[in-house]
Amino acid sequence: MFFHSKELQYHAKPEAADPVFAKQVQELIGGQFGEMSVAMQYLFQGWGTRGNEKYKDLLMDTGTQELGHIEMLATLVARLLEGAPVYEQEKAAKDPIVGAIMGGMNPQHAIVHGLGASPKDSNGVPWNAGYIVASGNLLADFRANVNAESQGRLQVARLYSMTDDRGVKDMFSFLIARDTMHQNQWLAAIAEMEAKEGVIVPSTVPPEWEASEFSHVYYPNADSTASQLDFLKNPAPDGHPFTVGETKPAGGVPVLKPAPPEAHNTLPGENE
Amino acid sequence: MFFHSKELQYHAKPEAADPVFAKQVQELIGGQFGEMSVAMQYLFQGWGTRGNEKYKDLLMDTGTQELGHIEMLATLVARLLEGAPVYEQEKAAKDPIVGAIMGGMNPQHAIVHGLGASPKDSNGVPWNAGYIVASGNLLADFRANVNAESQGRLQVARLYSMTDDRGVKDMFSFLIARDTMHQNQWLAAIAEMEAKEGVIVPSTVPPEWEASEFSHVYYPNADSTASQLDFLKNPAPDGHPFTVGETKPAGGVPVLKPAPPEAHNTLPGENE
Amino acid sequence: MFFHSKELQYHAKPEAADPVFAKQVQELIGGQFGEMSVAMQYLFQGWGTRGNEKYKDLLMDTGTQELGHIEMLATLVARLLEGAPVYEQEKAAKDPIVGAIMGGMNPQHAIVHGLGASPKDSNGVPWNAGYIVASGNLLADFRANVNAESQGRLQVARLYSMTDDRGVKDMFSFLIARDTMHQNQWLAAIAEMEAKEGVIVPSTVPPEWEASEFSHVYYPNADSTASQLDFLKNPAPDGHPFTVGETKPAGGVPVLKPAPPEAHNTLPGENE
Amino acid sequence: MFFHSKELQYHAKPEAADPVFAKQVQELIGGQFGEMSVAMQYLFQGWGTRGNEKYKDLLMDTGTQELGHIEMLATLVARLLEGAPVYEQEKAAKDPIVGAIMGGMNPQHAIVHGLGASPKDSNGVPWNAGYIVASGNLLADFRANVNAESQGRLQVARLYSMTDDRGVKDMFSFLIARDTMHQNQWLAAIAEMEAKEGVIVPSTVPPEWEASEFSHVYYPNADSTASQLDFLKNPAPDGHPFTVGETKPAGGVPVLKPAPPEAHNTLPGENE
Amino acid sequence: MFFHSKELQYHAKPEAADPVFAKQVQELIGGQFGEMSVAMQYLFQGWGTRGNEKYKDLLMDTGTQELGHIEMLATLVARLLEGAPVYEQEKAAKDPIVGAIMGGMNPQHAIVHGLGASPKDSNGVPWNAGYIVASGNLLADFRANVNAESQGRLQVARLYSMTDDRGVKDMFSFLIARDTMHQNQWLAAIAEMEAKEGVIVPSTVPPEWEASEFSHVYYPNADSTASQLDFLKNPAPDGHPFTVGETKPAGGVPVLKPAPPEAHNTLPGENE
Amino acid sequence: MFFHSKELQYHAKPEAADPVFAKQVQELIGGQFGEMSVAMQYLFQGWGTRGNEKYKDLLMDTGTQELGHIEMLATLVARLLEGAPVYEQEKAAKDPIVGAIMGGMNPQHAIVHGLGASPKDSNGVPWNAGYIVASGNLLADFRANVNAESQGRLQVARLYSMTDDRGVKDMFSFLIARDTMHQNQWLAAIAEMEAKEGVIVPSTVPPEWEASEFSHVYYPNADSTASQLDFLKNPAPDGHPFTVGETKPAGGVPVLKPAPPEAHNTLPGENE
Repeated sequence: MFFHSKELQYHAKPEAADPVFAKQVQELIGGQFGEMSVAMQYLFQGWGTRGNEKYKDLLMDTGTQELGHIEMLATLVARLLEGAPVYEQEKAAKDPIVGAIMGGMNPQHAIVHGLGASPKDSNGVPWNAGYIVASGNLLADFRANVNAESQGRLQVARLYSMTDDRGVKDMFSFLIARDTMHQNQWLAAIAEMEAKEGVIVPSTVPPEWEASEFSHVYYPNADSTASQLDFLKNPAPDGHPFTVGETKPAGGVPVLKPAPPEAHNTLPGENE
Repeated sequence: MFFHSKELQYHAKPEAADPVFAKQVQELIGGQFGEMSVAMQYLFQGWGTRGNEKYKDLLMDTGTQELGHIEMLATLVARLLEGAPVYEQEKAAKDPIVGAIMGGMNPQHAIVHGLGASPKDSNGVPWNAGYIVASGNLLADFRANVNAESQGRLQVARLYSMTDDRGVKDMFSFLIARDTMHQNQWLAAIAEMEAKEGVIVPSTVPPEWEASEFSHVYYPNADSTASQLDFLKNPAPDGHPFTVGETKPAGGVPVLKPAPPEAHNTLPGENE
Repeated sequence: MFFHSKELQYHAKPEAADPVFAKQVQELIGGQFGEMSVAMQYLFQGWGTRGNEKYKDLLMDTGTQELGHIEMLATLVARLLEGAPVYEQEKAAKDPIVGAIMGGMNPQHAIVHGLGASPKDSNGVPWNAGYIVASGNLLADFRANVNAESQGRLQVARLYSMTDDRGVKDMFSFLIARDTMHQNQWLAAIAEMEAKEGVIVPSTVPPEWEASEFSHVYYPNADSTASQLDFLKNPAPDGHPFTVGETKPAGGVPVLKPAPPEAHNTLPGENE
Repeated sequence: MFFHSKELQYHAKPEAADPVFAKQVQELIGGQFGEMSVAMQYLFQGWGTRGNEKYKDLLMDTGTQELGHIEMLATLVARLLEGAPVYEQEKAAKDPIVGAIMGGMNPQHAIVHGLGASPKDSNGVPWNAGYIVASGNLLADFRANVNAESQGRLQVARLYSMTDDRGVKDMFSFLIARDTMHQNQWLAAIAEMEAKEGVIVPSTVPPEWEASEFSHVYYPNADSTASQLDFLKNPAPDGHPFTVGETKPAGGVPVLKPAPPEAHNTLPGENE
Repeated sequence: MFFHSKELQYHAKPEAADPVFAKQVQELIGGQFGEMSVAMQYLFQGWGTRGNEKYKDLLMDTGTQELGHIEMLATLVARLLEGAPVYEQEKAAKDPIVGAIMGGMNPQHAIVHGLGASPKDSNGVPWNAGYIVASGNLLADFRANVNAESQGRLQVARLYSMTDDRGVKDMFSFLIARDTMHQNQWLAAIAEMEAKEGVIVPSTVPPEWEASEFSHVYYPNADSTASQLDFLKNPAPDGHPFTVGETKPAGGVPVLKPAPPEAHNTLPGENE
Repeated sequence: MFFHSKELQYHAKPEAADPVFAKQVQELIGGQFGEMSVAMQYLFQGWGTRGNEKYKDLLMDTGTQELGHIEMLATLVARLLEGAPVYEQEKAAKDPIVGAIMGGMNPQHAIVHGLGASPKDSNGVPWNAGYIVASGNLLADFRANVNAESQGRLQVARLYSMTDDRGVKDMFSFLIARDTMHQNQWLAAIAEMEAKEGVIVPSTVPPEWEASEFSHVYYPNADSTASQLDFLKNPAPDGHPFTVGETKPAGGVPVLKPAPPEAHNTLPGENE
């Protein structure tokens, strides 16, 4: 069960209005790796965890905090929209600065949300749950999590140089730090799990399910230089040596049977 | 530029029709971590790679092979639909086995595709490019890749026990092996990059952008056991020690300004 | 069955081209509460109405008119795109006013639609049927309808101040009036139904299905002022008194069972 | 900021496995009016509230509880999947009861989630933020909220008769009660606001923006009986009388100008 | 502007309930080529037609009728759901025929729509406007239209063999006939336009915009037999001869420049 | 199986940076008729082809080349983003030209992709597989293909006038030529198939499935001029004469039965 405090986890006070930047910050709320994604991803992973209560708590603790990050960013966006000339189309037609603002802002901030944040990305595409990962295999999912925190910190870093506003930068410095923590925690948890069960997910596949002659071979295209990569000369992370193979088909030319009449497909031999 | 050979990379020959399983196999084609996702993810990462030609080749080589995996699975699905009673609604009403087949299959296999594969997942939801990751930062993206191969191998392993068909199992043993290889290769490439630039992505953020007092603190909920996790007692992967902090707000209660009249929002003080 | 007259229901004649505003007006065509939504919502509600023929007629009459509103808005958008410099990228690079127009317009108006309206919202996101409501319970659905007309009138009012064009304003004055009518009609129909069956939907739930000790309790967070709201001091709309309760969990800590081996989930006890 | 307790708000303990029902319960998690929708809807409304702090608290309190409802339902779904023959395709081919289970369950519960809940609806369509409403106008949004709680209670009531499981019914009796409370609270808040500002949203539109001759007229189709509805004979909710008008066009036949050559549209007069 | 008659364009009376078939028929309502698609496609094409009034009328006439086809199919689906055991989960657990029905039906028909039609396809995916085409170039769009009517007639034909219900077959015979008419009309209109402007769309591209040495060359893969197709030996539809060329790259190896520091991409030369 | 060469099929070298145009070019990558669509459409059609090997090869050859077109366009977009002031928000606030660039570009090019192409359209909407067609009936699908190539060539032609960059125009002249070829090849293949099986798809519907009295009648609205179109005076493409009929309903007024109590719909007769 959840509880809420009206205080923010950290400050969200821009110095000045900036509706174009408000549109861009939406990426951190409702983008593929925005805070809606990490919050929902960690919570669904937690709710589905079976028999590993400390890890479940780790997921629930972190997911709960990410809810608070959506809140901070939604507050930031609402404030970036305060006092800006977002309804002044008429001025926009004459003043190119105002025109660029109105052209560059998210029109839904004015028309749909009345100067509030939107649960969408920086192009106005609604967040959807197809972004998130919850497989029941924690090693797999922690890899999803370290990726999410890497992409997230990368996006905040890019936005950091796109503004001069010290209030925004202050808040971003907090988000950058928390993404550092979260990368650290998922990486450490992954190392802990890999030490116990090995690096290949899922670790429970019996050897006879795997065509092991294909498990460590690199297949380059003719003009590819990738087979010269240093790491291919060392043992693979699971301990076996990598090899380089010949890239060629082994499955023959498939020919499908004609469809039954009820399918009303093209009749066979139509073009022979 | 791409070239095609009519031969499959590996066999895709089920022993018998099974339209319910055909529906389930769709997850591996058009699901979040199906072959359409990895193919497009690696290709878009490759096309956006700037100044790292061997890694670009690695991405293009691997992405090109994944295109061939879509092909193998599309062939498998088409064959699982051959000869099954998919148009026999009438029989279904009386014979519960046929009824379960018709109820459990993907109706679009019969109605829309004429017994061919669909570019959708096991519930018939179209594949979309919101699934894929291509950030321009290769360490971040290789983490996305090792996640994708982990989720993918996990899904094939689950499907492996859901069928008795030796032809299907033969093809799945190939996919399991290739996912082993791809987990290995992305893990090795990640290790290579981390050795050079450290583990926190992006490695290029200047220290003054980060509120470092929040970079290694774990904030547990009151009844959480996560702070007892072993890994929190060791140094974090970036070398700093983890600490456990008090989970409390630091940002004050935000109060937004009333909206301008043009927004036609609720007037302020409405409920005071 | 439907019939069409080539005449518009009302005028749709802007005084001048304005491609940035054309983009914004798209919200009223293909947005969540655009005319495509209300048209399809009322028609699907009508087609599913069982045993209430006058209400069915009310839905079909209103839905049919909304089709004509899509038509008026599509005509308006097409005319807002007439004669504007939408293909003049070159000029845009030098003239900031033209640059703001080209940056602020919907590129699909030029590239995809050849200066016609798009079945999408103001950010170019396609309309989808996930927006609409048709439940078979008319009281529930009329509440959806009065919401849709409230959101719709609000959006037109916001757009009204964003233009100076008297032709656009004339058409918007018609839409504002029709949304007044539609709010009135759904509110009146709701009152009629509530008078007969009470205010809680669905009215047909037997008392023994409901844990009535939770039916009128407000649960505030610790720092919330909401329990001081005036309305909580009066009887609830269904006649029972509101109470304020203690916000605390009553369901215990759930622990899920380990997954079967075929799921290849993390093994239990991994982190104990 | 948010906090989490590991205890559930209420019990979520089914008596027995039922994977087909697990699929159906997904509607309450990730459907258009599932708990993800109400949670996110109330939170985004709260975060965007300007100058009405008690209402903001009302939204935040309620939204926070809905997060706990997702949690209860995710736990319920995970338990409905425990111990069921979800990986037993082979048995399914021979035993029609098992076949019906495997055909009727959500395949992603087995393949993608390892027996955990999915952030999707009962057909496996991902939840998306296009479902939610946050306009900045609280009267409009509370109408969205009473609709959401009406649709939600209706769906739980329908599912209630679709199961015999006393544990499930117990949990549903709690959800039904909370939806009663929430319908009551939004209805009471709406009445409070309407008493102050009138019933037509937004209340701030100046009279001269509205073509008032169209504000209270009902336009029936030729064979419609709707104009005989009782409510049309009484004053409208805003106090003005309803009238019935003649359904006819008033906007003339629109003719668009030919497109410029750069549009490469069909040349005008092609078919004259 | 539109008008509605309460009578259906044609009968929609199934002989008996069939909720599994009701799910399948949804493809014709809300699928990619369902009636929502053709209705909206023709109407948006009509609303965007510039300077070709008879063709505009053709589009509006046909689109208006397709609205009536949605209506017929929505009525059919509602009736296929009447009297079926859709809420009888309990029986389903014991009776495999009932189990197959409940597993094979669309759960939203019971839970969300109260036995009404859904604006979604046969897998429950919402219809979206990304399916439709309206380019402003009528020859291009009429090609889209003849495709839509071809796919539509094909789907009805497939469904025709999947039922024994004479009422359903009667209605399908009407739809098959109308799709014959519509294929005929679009093909005839296309022939009329091609006779005037030639077969390549758009006909207005100046010769100097086209690298004509690539305009008639077929590039086969090494093991392809396609270059033996008869039609490649005759002149192309635009009058020029086809040739067969060598499939090889002509664009050199592209190397992108390193990203600027603000992008925080991988540094160049990372893997040299 | 697929192979890749690092060389592009054709040049993709813009003369200068242009991030606003980069946004617009995205339509050709991830739009409804972008190269992702045609590549995936032809490949899925090829993989589902049953018994027509030369046509299958035709589809595979063409689909494989389209993969190379995505590559060319992704390279073009990456280069259009090189060296532009995409991270210079600060300058944008003062310099309207820079402001228009930052407002008019796709923010995800900077924030999400680090100056790489995106698998989305010109408004940032992700490509999805709902765009593509693969029915198993080749005549139907070739009609989809000629439409796709018509829409595609039309869009390139429109973009051609929106830039001055000779490098971009050079690449577009190649795309225009290939779309000419592909229109020609699909039209020729269609003519070949129609000569064998007639023009109405599917050609395999028995006459008794069709209510032939509706197969050639045009139904105009009262004020429509479409019945004067020349082509209606000639025989239809399938050889039968067109006629013009009276537009009127023939299906009676449908009345649905009340819902069962478990549906909790509105009770019948509520408004009588």
